[in-house]
Amino acid sequence: MEENTPAIAIAKAARSAFEKSQLLLASERVTALHEIRKGLEASKDAILAANKQDLELAQVEVDAGRMSGSLLKRLDLNKGDKWDSMLQGVVDVANLPDPTGRVTYASELDDNLELYQITCPIGVLLVIFEARPEVVVNIAALAIKSGNAAILKGGKESSNTAVLLSQAIQRALARTSLPDTYIQTIQTRAEVSSLLELDRYIDLVIPRGSNSLVRNIQNNTRIPVMGHADGLCHVYLDESADVEKATRVVVDSKTDYPAACNAAETLIVHEALLQSVWPKVARALLEADVQLLCDSATLHALSTLSPPPSNLSARVHLSTPSSYTTEHLTLTLSVVALPSLAAAVQWINAHSSHHTDAIVTESEEAASLFCRGVDSAGTFVNASTRFADGFRYGFGTEVGISTGKIHARGPVGLEGLVIYKYILRSKGEQGHVVGEFGVGAGKKKYKHADIMAASLPF
Amino acid sequence: MEENTPAIAIAKAARSAFEKSQLLLASERVTALHEIRKGLEASKDAILAANKQDLELAQVEVDAGRMSGSLLKRLDLNKGDKWDSMLQGVVDVANLPDPTGRVTYASELDDNLELYQITCPIGVLLVIFEARPEVVVNIAALAIKSGNAAILKGGKESSNTAVLLSQAIQRALARTSLPDTYIQTIQTRAEVSSLLELDRYIDLVIPRGSNSLVRNIQNNTRIPVMGHADGLCHVYLDESADVEKATRVVVDSKTDYPAACNAAETLIVHEALLQSVWPKVARALLEADVQLLCDSATLHALSTLSPPPSNLSARVHLSTPSSYTTEHLTLTLSVVALPSLAAAVQWINAHSSHHTDAIVTESEEAASLFCRGVDSAGTFVNASTRFADGFRYGFGTEVGISTGKIHARGPVGLEGLVIYKYILRSKGEQGHVVGEFGVGAGKKKYKHADIMAASLPF
Repeated sequence: MEENTPAIAIAKAARSAFEKSQLLLASERVTALHEIRKGLEASKDAILAANKQDLELAQVEVDAGRMSGSLLKRLDLNKGDKWDSMLQGVVDVANLPDPTGRVTYASELDDNLELYQITCPIGVLLVIFEARPEVVVNIAALAIKSGNAAILKGGKESSNTAVLLSQAIQRALARTSLPDTYIQTIQTRAEVSSLLELDRYIDLVIPRGSNSLVRNIQNNTRIPVMGHADGLCHVYLDESADVEKATRVVVDSKTDYPAACNAAETLIVHEALLQSVWPKVARALLEADVQLLCDSATLHALSTLSPPPSNLSARVHLSTPSSYTTEHLTLTLSVVALPSLAAAVQWINAHSSHHTDAIVTESEEAASLFCRGVDSAGTFVNASTRFADGFRYGFGTEVGISTGKIHARGPVGLEGLVIYKYILRSKGEQGHVVGEFGVGAGKKKYKHADIMAASLPF
Repeated sequence: MEENTPAIAIAKAARSAFEKSQLLLASERVTALHEIRKGLEASKDAILAANKQDLELAQVEVDAGRMSGSLLKRLDLNKGDKWDSMLQGVVDVANLPDPTGRVTYASELDDNLELYQITCPIGVLLVIFEARPEVVVNIAALAIKSGNAAILKGGKESSNTAVLLSQAIQRALARTSLPDTYIQTIQTRAEVSSLLELDRYIDLVIPRGSNSLVRNIQNNTRIPVMGHADGLCHVYLDESADVEKATRVVVDSKTDYPAACNAAETLIVHEALLQSVWPKVARALLEADVQLLCDSATLHALSTLSPPPSNLSARVHLSTPSSYTTEHLTLTLSVVALPSLAAAVQWINAHSSHHTDAIVTESEEAASLFCRGVDSAGTFVNASTRFADGFRYGFGTEVGISTGKIHARGPVGLEGLVIYKYILRSKGEQGHVVGEFGVGAGKKKYKHADIMAASLPF
């Protein structure tokens, strides 16, 4: 017999909430989202007071040098329009099209025997993320909209805020037909460890954080993991690259928001460009105060320039092998020269985190080979890696950017939180049995006639 | 530095073969399939000789009581039309529509900036399966057609046959533009264990076998696992069930092919049917020589019949709790009476392997609640669970039947072996950068205009 530990109680409650919700109409989930927005607004003062507590505790950590100032800033829920856009986000998700109940395949197998593949929720999600407290609300909204129950674990730095957000969400759910255990939050790593054992109740783990967080979870669970980890993105300047496109794309990919996972970390330069395009691109990068970690070929090309770039010795250094496996997340860019497109594709497949990689080229053939050959979620031509984003792609919102290759890849919208099931309905007078089909006299043959239907006709 | 163990060499060769194949046209993979069919035909005598060896070794095991006669029969590649249908299967797969390169989402983000989501292979598959040697050829064909490299591990009982099949496939590949390491086979569990460590090279593990095989693999790898495990399928006779439909669906679900994963293992009878429909269904099952493991209510209903069924004492027994968690795979059926549809749905969600479950009902509402409430890959109305099958669904062929809820669920066709990537192309004169978009004067807005395209226009 299974013991009834706290983790099992949480997981069972989530599973039971999911199963009950399956019998409700999707419109009730939309109602719940509006109720949550109202509940958060009503609890605004208390939530911001808890957030102030988190900020004060964080300030102590920053003062002691145990936390970065940029992390502290990300905790602040009262900064700029953050609160309002968090609430607007809930409404936006409520207004997105329902990702469930869509017929994605339908076939008449026999007279009066109809098969429908329809999208449906996955079940119970365990979502583990870092710092920013508003993610609790974002993820809760996405889970509810897609019909999944969720257990959420945020960063300990925002735990006071997360508790209040979670209570407001549960009180709002209690006023709807959805169970209030549809969204639960947990606080400790020990709870996470216990939940990772419970593949009987939990269908998917979504960790958003560092590579090591994702790998650690993958190492410790049978539950499928949809990892949202590092972005080690490349820009490759092809032999035929236009110098202006090259400069604009490289500078934007590196400097538009260096801390983002879709920022470029490595620049690959075709050897033919060492004396032409590369110096111009390097000057633009150095003007934008980017530090360059160069291999000997790209370094040599810069040091022989006349006049040499003014901040050459301060901002340009020789790279090491680890330069090319580091997600800098700052104004640092690793640079390497390679002799061919094929070598660049091979380099990227070996070093990239398979997030997003771009080519700058004027050649249709090179563009096509690059997009086919590079095994990444995004392969871009003459466009900044920074475009890799659910909002920019037109998904309205995103769960995160999956670096896995199963189920959902790249920016994951609501579509990434659903799967499908098959519904087979016999309207025959005697029902339908397999024994009547087959080869030989009197046996029926399968029809497999397409059925046109966007939603279930019953 | 990584050691170059035999497993790493195999995994690297597979990854390299996959990456090279990405630069080839899909038509070359079709050519390779035809070449493989020819190669197998040319090696027929040698392969069947190896198969005879496997059969002789298996006979020793059967004689010693260490192997079942039915397993031995499944090893025989020369039985009936097995050889010919194996070869025809390769041609059938070759003739299926290409699952890769299909545009599944396309949006114009800005003038001259086009985003395409296109289907593409997953990468390197590790497929682990049991006994039947022809599965080597089936899976190789499906992997090649979908553009994935594969490493295959079959049952040790068919290892001589598998080696010859594999050699024929590799020799055929060597005559094509695909690398001959596109399909590799391994023989030992130790190799499997080593490969399960190599998430850097292998993208997906597909185990087809028992629950314990699948769980053991899930416990020992970071690589995503698409499990094809047990089928613990239910038929529920609703209060409004028609007796004829009930009898036909239950008998077919249990007896059409009891060893299949889509055969029914448990029958749930609404309590209102105990004196009406249930006795008639039970008589039909007993006539078909099915052994019934009944709870006390369904047992009592049969023992008070007059006249009692003739083989009552021999074929009807009291069930135990484990009866309802056992995949019998024989002519044995567990039976339980429950008081309501809600109780049946709850029972199924707690006991089912989430493979396929059926309701027999005349009520539209009950059918709809059952299909929404039961969290299984297949929810069927008045139709036998035996319809859960890729061929019957119209997929042409199947990798297996996934009991997971991520990526692919239920019968998995070629679609289950692909994922997608995003290709973003700028045709703008200066390329495209994110910094030009945003709020405020002079900033561009995203267009997000649908593009109609079935395949990439470049």
